[in-house]
Amino acid sequence: MPTYDLIVRGGTVATAVDVMRCDIAIKAGKIAAIGENLGDASEVVDAGGALVTPGGVDSHCHIEQLSAMGVVNADTFETATGSAALGGTTTVIPFACQHKGMDIAEVARDYHALARRGSITDYALHLIVTDPTPVTMNEHLPALAKDGHGSIKVFMTYDAMKIDDGEMLDVLLKARELGTMVCVHAENHGMIKWMVQRLLDRGYTAPKYHAISHPRGSEAEAFNRLIAMSELIDQPIMIFHVSTAEGAATVNAARARGVKVWAETCPQYLFLTKEDLDKPGMEGAKWCCSPPPRGEADIEALWAALERGDLQTVTSDHAPFSFDEKGKLSAGPNPTFKQIPNGMPGLQVRMPLMFDAIVSRGRMEVTDFVRLMSTAPAQLYNLADRKGSIAVGKDADIVVWDTEREVTLTDEMMADATGYTPFVGRTLKGWPATVLRRGEVVVKDGTLTGKPGSGEFLPRTGGRAAAPRGKVAPEFDPAQNFGAKLL
Amino acid sequence: MPTYDLIVRGGTVATAVDVMRCDIAIKAGKIAAIGENLGDASEVVDAGGALVTPGGVDSHCHIEQLSAMGVVNADTFETATGSAALGGTTTVIPFACQHKGMDIAEVARDYHALARRGSITDYALHLIVTDPTPVTMNEHLPALAKDGHGSIKVFMTYDAMKIDDGEMLDVLLKARELGTMVCVHAENHGMIKWMVQRLLDRGYTAPKYHAISHPRGSEAEAFNRLIAMSELIDQPIMIFHVSTAEGAATVNAARARGVKVWAETCPQYLFLTKEDLDKPGMEGAKWCCSPPPRGEADIEALWAALERGDLQTVTSDHAPFSFDEKGKLSAGPNPTFKQIPNGMPGLQVRMPLMFDAIVSRGRMEVTDFVRLMSTAPAQLYNLADRKGSIAVGKDADIVVWDTEREVTLTDEMMADATGYTPFVGRTLKGWPATVLRRGEVVVKDGTLTGKPGSGEFLPRTGGRAAAPRGKVAPEFDPAQNFGAKLL
Amino acid sequence: MPTYDLIVRGGTVATAVDVMRCDIAIKAGKIAAIGENLGDASEVVDAGGALVTPGGVDSHCHIEQLSAMGVVNADTFETATGSAALGGTTTVIPFACQHKGMDIAEVARDYHALARRGSITDYALHLIVTDPTPVTMNEHLPALAKDGHGSIKVFMTYDAMKIDDGEMLDVLLKARELGTMVCVHAENHGMIKWMVQRLLDRGYTAPKYHAISHPRGSEAEAFNRLIAMSELIDQPIMIFHVSTAEGAATVNAARARGVKVWAETCPQYLFLTKEDLDKPGMEGAKWCCSPPPRGEADIEALWAALERGDLQTVTSDHAPFSFDEKGKLSAGPNPTFKQIPNGMPGLQVRMPLMFDAIVSRGRMEVTDFVRLMSTAPAQLYNLADRKGSIAVGKDADIVVWDTEREVTLTDEMMADATGYTPFVGRTLKGWPATVLRRGEVVVKDGTLTGKPGSGEFLPRTGGRAAAPRGKVAPEFDPAQNFGAKLL
Amino acid sequence: MPTYDLIVRGGTVATAVDVMRCDIAIKAGKIAAIGENLGDASEVVDAGGALVTPGGVDSHCHIEQLSAMGVVNADTFETATGSAALGGTTTVIPFACQHKGMDIAEVARDYHALARRGSITDYALHLIVTDPTPVTMNEHLPALAKDGHGSIKVFMTYDAMKIDDGEMLDVLLKARELGTMVCVHAENHGMIKWMVQRLLDRGYTAPKYHAISHPRGSEAEAFNRLIAMSELIDQPIMIFHVSTAEGAATVNAARARGVKVWAETCPQYLFLTKEDLDKPGMEGAKWCCSPPPRGEADIEALWAALERGDLQTVTSDHAPFSFDEKGKLSAGPNPTFKQIPNGMPGLQVRMPLMFDAIVSRGRMEVTDFVRLMSTAPAQLYNLADRKGSIAVGKDADIVVWDTEREVTLTDEMMADATGYTPFVGRTLKGWPATVLRRGEVVVKDGTLTGKPGSGEFLPRTGGRAAAPRGKVAPEFDPAQNFGAKLL
Repeated sequence: MPTYDLIVRGGTVATAVDVMRCDIAIKAGKIAAIGENLGDASEVVDAGGALVTPGGVDSHCHIEQLSAMGVVNADTFETATGSAALGGTTTVIPFACQHKGMDIAEVARDYHALARRGSITDYALHLIVTDPTPVTMNEHLPALAKDGHGSIKVFMTYDAMKIDDGEMLDVLLKARELGTMVCVHAENHGMIKWMVQRLLDRGYTAPKYHAISHPRGSEAEAFNRLIAMSELIDQPIMIFHVSTAEGAATVNAARARGVKVWAETCPQYLFLTKEDLDKPGMEGAKWCCSPPPRGEADIEALWAALERGDLQTVTSDHAPFSFDEKGKLSAGPNPTFKQIPNGMPGLQVRMPLMFDAIVSRGRMEVTDFVRLMSTAPAQLYNLADRKGSIAVGKDADIVVWDTEREVTLTDEMMADATGYTPFVGRTLKGWPATVLRRGEVVVKDGTLTGKPGSGEFLPRTGGRAAAPRGKVAPEFDPAQNFGAKLL
Repeated sequence: MPTYDLIVRGGTVATAVDVMRCDIAIKAGKIAAIGENLGDASEVVDAGGALVTPGGVDSHCHIEQLSAMGVVNADTFETATGSAALGGTTTVIPFACQHKGMDIAEVARDYHALARRGSITDYALHLIVTDPTPVTMNEHLPALAKDGHGSIKVFMTYDAMKIDDGEMLDVLLKARELGTMVCVHAENHGMIKWMVQRLLDRGYTAPKYHAISHPRGSEAEAFNRLIAMSELIDQPIMIFHVSTAEGAATVNAARARGVKVWAETCPQYLFLTKEDLDKPGMEGAKWCCSPPPRGEADIEALWAALERGDLQTVTSDHAPFSFDEKGKLSAGPNPTFKQIPNGMPGLQVRMPLMFDAIVSRGRMEVTDFVRLMSTAPAQLYNLADRKGSIAVGKDADIVVWDTEREVTLTDEMMADATGYTPFVGRTLKGWPATVLRRGEVVVKDGTLTGKPGSGEFLPRTGGRAAAPRGKVAPEFDPAQNFGAKLL
Repeated sequence: MPTYDLIVRGGTVATAVDVMRCDIAIKAGKIAAIGENLGDASEVVDAGGALVTPGGVDSHCHIEQLSAMGVVNADTFETATGSAALGGTTTVIPFACQHKGMDIAEVARDYHALARRGSITDYALHLIVTDPTPVTMNEHLPALAKDGHGSIKVFMTYDAMKIDDGEMLDVLLKARELGTMVCVHAENHGMIKWMVQRLLDRGYTAPKYHAISHPRGSEAEAFNRLIAMSELIDQPIMIFHVSTAEGAATVNAARARGVKVWAETCPQYLFLTKEDLDKPGMEGAKWCCSPPPRGEADIEALWAALERGDLQTVTSDHAPFSFDEKGKLSAGPNPTFKQIPNGMPGLQVRMPLMFDAIVSRGRMEVTDFVRLMSTAPAQLYNLADRKGSIAVGKDADIVVWDTEREVTLTDEMMADATGYTPFVGRTLKGWPATVLRRGEVVVKDGTLTGKPGSGEFLPRTGGRAAAPRGKVAPEFDPAQNFGAKLL
Repeated sequence: MPTYDLIVRGGTVATAVDVMRCDIAIKAGKIAAIGENLGDASEVVDAGGALVTPGGVDSHCHIEQLSAMGVVNADTFETATGSAALGGTTTVIPFACQHKGMDIAEVARDYHALARRGSITDYALHLIVTDPTPVTMNEHLPALAKDGHGSIKVFMTYDAMKIDDGEMLDVLLKARELGTMVCVHAENHGMIKWMVQRLLDRGYTAPKYHAISHPRGSEAEAFNRLIAMSELIDQPIMIFHVSTAEGAATVNAARARGVKVWAETCPQYLFLTKEDLDKPGMEGAKWCCSPPPRGEADIEALWAALERGDLQTVTSDHAPFSFDEKGKLSAGPNPTFKQIPNGMPGLQVRMPLMFDAIVSRGRMEVTDFVRLMSTAPAQLYNLADRKGSIAVGKDADIVVWDTEREVTLTDEMMADATGYTPFVGRTLKGWPATVLRRGEVVVKDGTLTGKPGSGEFLPRTGGRAAAPRGKVAPEFDPAQNFGAKLL
């Protein structure tokens, strides 16, 4: 009887720190050994010297999510996670989204059912809180945290989603009690809403005007406000989708003075600019996401922040809307930019885009690629016991890359249900050939073989951005405040 | 017939730049000449070598103002401006305060009537806007600006007063169109409200807890947000009552990168700390104002900001509430700190407190005293054609100081109707002996001689913080934004 | 007998804070009165409503100075101060320059003799210290300080002039003891020397290469180093000729954290750029000064720093070298940029250039013009008891401007002995018509009438940048340092 | 025949990203496999579940180094690297030190001979350049770089060692050409020398005064100057032994604006303060190192900078001087602090001190410990192909920790030849039990078994801080500079 179930033979295996020429032996879905000339196995994947990395962890994506406006998210868990797998991602963290008035416990149950039925990749869930009622805060969230929902997401903008500053403080304090992470979509709602109205009032309704309806300053402002609240409560935060140089600088300044702020960016802010929205007719609608892509100087600043470590990971913020009456054009054939659902698909292309930029074009090291795309998000979100690296005892989530393959992206290649990719036309070097998830071949020679419903839920507690810092905020310190004990 | 109506003979006359041993000759209420041995006059005030400065300009004080909560402001224009004159202030800028639902044009008429009847000092008026309805914005404000109301004040906190970020942008843009100043009470409402509730929930109701109910970070946060909005609209702002080191640093950083931000502080932030609220029983209520006094390090930072020019003037923020059921205790004999009306009297002591600190104790030069207390506010608020200096052609608003007189402040000495002073017990060196307003002796040997109703309204347009900067914010620049013309 | 010696009748008189329509009456060289319709005078200058300002104070200029290299400074005190007077400047502070090995007491005597013989304007003297021997430091400087030399200048660059960091600390500490100012030419010597050599080695010898031989970073570096030493000793500093945006930002950052740093810039950094050096043949030599003119963004940053107050005055740094074998071409007809003496004339045009920019073109207020060009330098250098303002008791140094006159600058118009102006070809609006120095008409209708040798020496002590701050640097504080008493 | 030479059985193996329960199999000195239940081996080390980490890499230590003053470094390569091995360090990078007048090629040969004879650990060499003569720069350094000396070290202080700013620019540019790293001891020489003299002049000669003879500001000043030069040349730098909060902030600011600055600190700055120098008699001499230990706030700032990534590694700066006439007291029994050789031993305790702080006391994660002590220095100095991690194909440099062992440090325990440890008396939890170097047991049960001369030289090129950034410094860009091609 062979010692191992499967061996990935002769790869150039990269972790976030090492690059090794070796085999990877798998048993019962886990990595049993990494080494030269490991023994027999029932199944062998011959890497032939190719680069082998951990499967990607995409910690920010919207799957089968019900919109507040009733617009249909184009994907199911099956199509979304299938596309993710094809792109080399084996773990996703989508959202269980509470809308106002909803029971968040029920919401979580519903999303679990959807994921259980369709998911090909493994998954965890963020809880979106839009209605922090007493029962939500004091009953449901503690119970859900205990059940392995280690992160909450809140919005500072969108009429239907946003919580106000007081509610933010409630959420931060509750998260501190529960040891849970808080992820935030941080933009200044008032500035955006005002600018939108001003544009519409003047007849600037084309999709491209979405790009200037979110003023640059609305990002750094919201970051700064959020950080001030984080400092008051002494609760770390994860800032989603940084898009501007000023935003990245605000994160750096906070970290430099000791505030525990974590942050991500997305391919749309590293590869696209607002000029991409300037397309004939409604075409630009495909590029409408929030925050919008910015300018070349922002792109450079975001790459520098990734190198410096002020941003720790790159997620897709996959938010798929078809380019038809069920999605981008749900308000009619000629919507104003405000009526266009925000978001773009990205689960499939996230890894190849970053591989091309970092590894093939040499922007950073292959170890950095692994760190940003797999290891860091696994660590940040407390999945690192099973995910994010190639190490003994970890889940055998592995990508064998065809590093020489050049792929020009087309809408047709996209396996999610959106129907297009905003990165269409780009030629990327390097593409996932074989993908293993828990030792099972889910992508073979670039073809999906994984079964819907084979993905597993990954329960977890808070992660890096949840650890109490032990430093009591001055306002909460009895010694400094007339004996008031506020924590 | 004598050449002049009145001569102040032989003073040591200080302006914001010069100190001169000379006479000041007055004719028809205006300064006709400054010089040695000027000729005859009907009346002579012998300064005997004493220091002579311009009358003070207090650009931030609440007089006979109707509170949203119905609490009575202890003063009338007569008592308030009488106390101001006794303290060497000859010009005030109180508020015409629109509450929600009110017609701001009527509001202005009402305050004009009150001021006309009672004022002993000259006065201008800020318009408080809490309800920026279309008629307020498009009809009343333009008409009122034309009538000489050159400044608007808005609040970012207080449930009854605050406007939201979108309304702030409306006000900033309207002010830009009208060439009007915008003054702002900038604190983060959500953080304060949340902290107040947390304190009350835990039974921390004593007056001293007011001091920590406004977290330090709520100030710099609001400054930063306001500045972001100011940059978007390219409209300068005047930030009222800076109280924290971080607030002053935020102002400096904005000015250093070229944003036109002006700012003031008040004696309560230069001389008091939160420890002053820690009194037995309800006594601490007298020290409850917003923002609250902070700590010693803040005091040092604020003085440094005054020296550096990041703060340009020192106002009283006079807000008088008697220590009884009509004022501080209007909610009953044992109110929680939240039920205590915010504010403290200061019109009378502002000038003596600063004279003592700057001139008698030598913290800065006497020219700095004149600049901070008279010249700068007159320039900032566009009163400099008549007020704020001792110069030929200016209104003869003049203070002759008894520089050797030492005064220990008592509640009884206070001429306003509040009944106490939060600076009680301090011994100050230097006190106004004679005060002229437009050449008329309104204080003689420390006694009030000015007549109620003798003060004049000072119509004005915007002032320094209103001048368009000519620099279009990027988001409003058609060239950069697909042809969208937003200004 | 007329009451006054001279009256300037009917001017629009500006000080650093006020603008007044009035007469100025003069007696015994001093201003006796400012007022409407002042009485009789022996002599009347009819201002006819024109703008009247204080005479300029140029606190940084090189006159009849012996160069270390033996190159002749083109001017004598007569030509230099004559040109200054024609440009509206009535007080200058040139240098008594010690070269290595020289006795600074003798040096001072020599310069006094030159100034006494030739000066038309009044003058003070900075002492340039290049050789801080014990006798210089412990005998000569104390004696010279007592005799009214209230400021020392040192260089951080130039082989023949520079002192090292240890000597700088000696000078700062000595200045602290004597209550003297320290003015510094702050550039990083090593970076400049290295860059010069690199350019020369590659055959880049034309004058324009001077502009890049002083790397931008060499300025902010030296400022930062100087500020660190200033903080250690707790001695304020005056930084000469700020030329870069980074330099201005370094000054702002130091001031924002409480260090007493003062700084100036010059017209060459406000109106010229390095492109001005790019002239055919040797012509560019006329524009060679150190630091060199920089770029447009620097110009904007320097104006912003003037508005903000981080820079307090604008001086000429007049350093006149004729465009011939006695000056710019003293090393031969085709010198390398390194062999070209550094400096440009500016005494005459400083005031008209700034008047045109600030008053005629409206960049700032006329009061700002007076502050920057007259009042602030008089205050900074402790001349304010006599100079820098139009105030009773002050020296009657007065300029009546022809505000409508447009002048296109030509080399021929220049009254100093340099033979050219680097601002040639510019058209300025506003020109000094009549100039009084201590009540005497030294320029009449644009023609020099002042007599050589009529200027007076102005003894003084330290000025603003000399005042001890009372804050002991931590390293000098016994309490923090094992009892070591270092001050 | 067993498959492997040696297996470390059943450890809890930590890399910089992963923690795995597994075996490590070794063949021919390299790691052949990592996995569960690996096969047979000739030799087995039973880890028994204990923590297993990569061997430490100490990239800054002085071994058998000839002092400029002729003082004897207490160690030989044998004693020094033996002590290193006992402390869990298996790779060191000491210096080949050129003194003025020396031929650096000969110097390198000499140090190689010493290391070859005695070293128990593997080693690379930094080249100290104090005399950058043309032959050094143009012949020897290129040849030495080719031979695997991938880093240069220079000093900004010490009379006998320092190079000036121009020489620094030469070195930076040469390093850029050669692809070599530049490591810098950055302190302001003038400030230190001046302060030393001032202290001595006043009779403050005791060892403790060394702590204030290096003013805090001398560090950030030198960092800032070095960074300015680094930016000019576009050559990254490695800043050695950061000791102050301001120093760490300077590094952060430079990194935030995109300058490639790397930096380290040492245990003496993380665990000691200047108060440690305050011992009776000459005892404090043992704690004299440069820069000196600072204060508690600095310690906190340095830990924060390590967490944030602004500092990347922790080295010993081992510089051993015996406490007798051959070392610390070589100038006599009562030297002034200036006569005491600077430095302290640390090779042996570096790893245990950091293990105790990070792992046992929980300041950071065990993966952080591995990153800071092993992986990062191996990557920074281009040793990562062989050193710094536990990965297939890497040298089998492995430490098995006795995580429960508590050790109170005594002078007697120290295996280097210094005779004392400045960390004496501290109790640490966690100690290296078994240490492998290239698969050979060099420490067994805490006893040294490695043979002198068994260590190997590790040739290498530049490392992370040497990579050209591709961004041409503005001053070197022909397009911006009149066609001057400076690179």
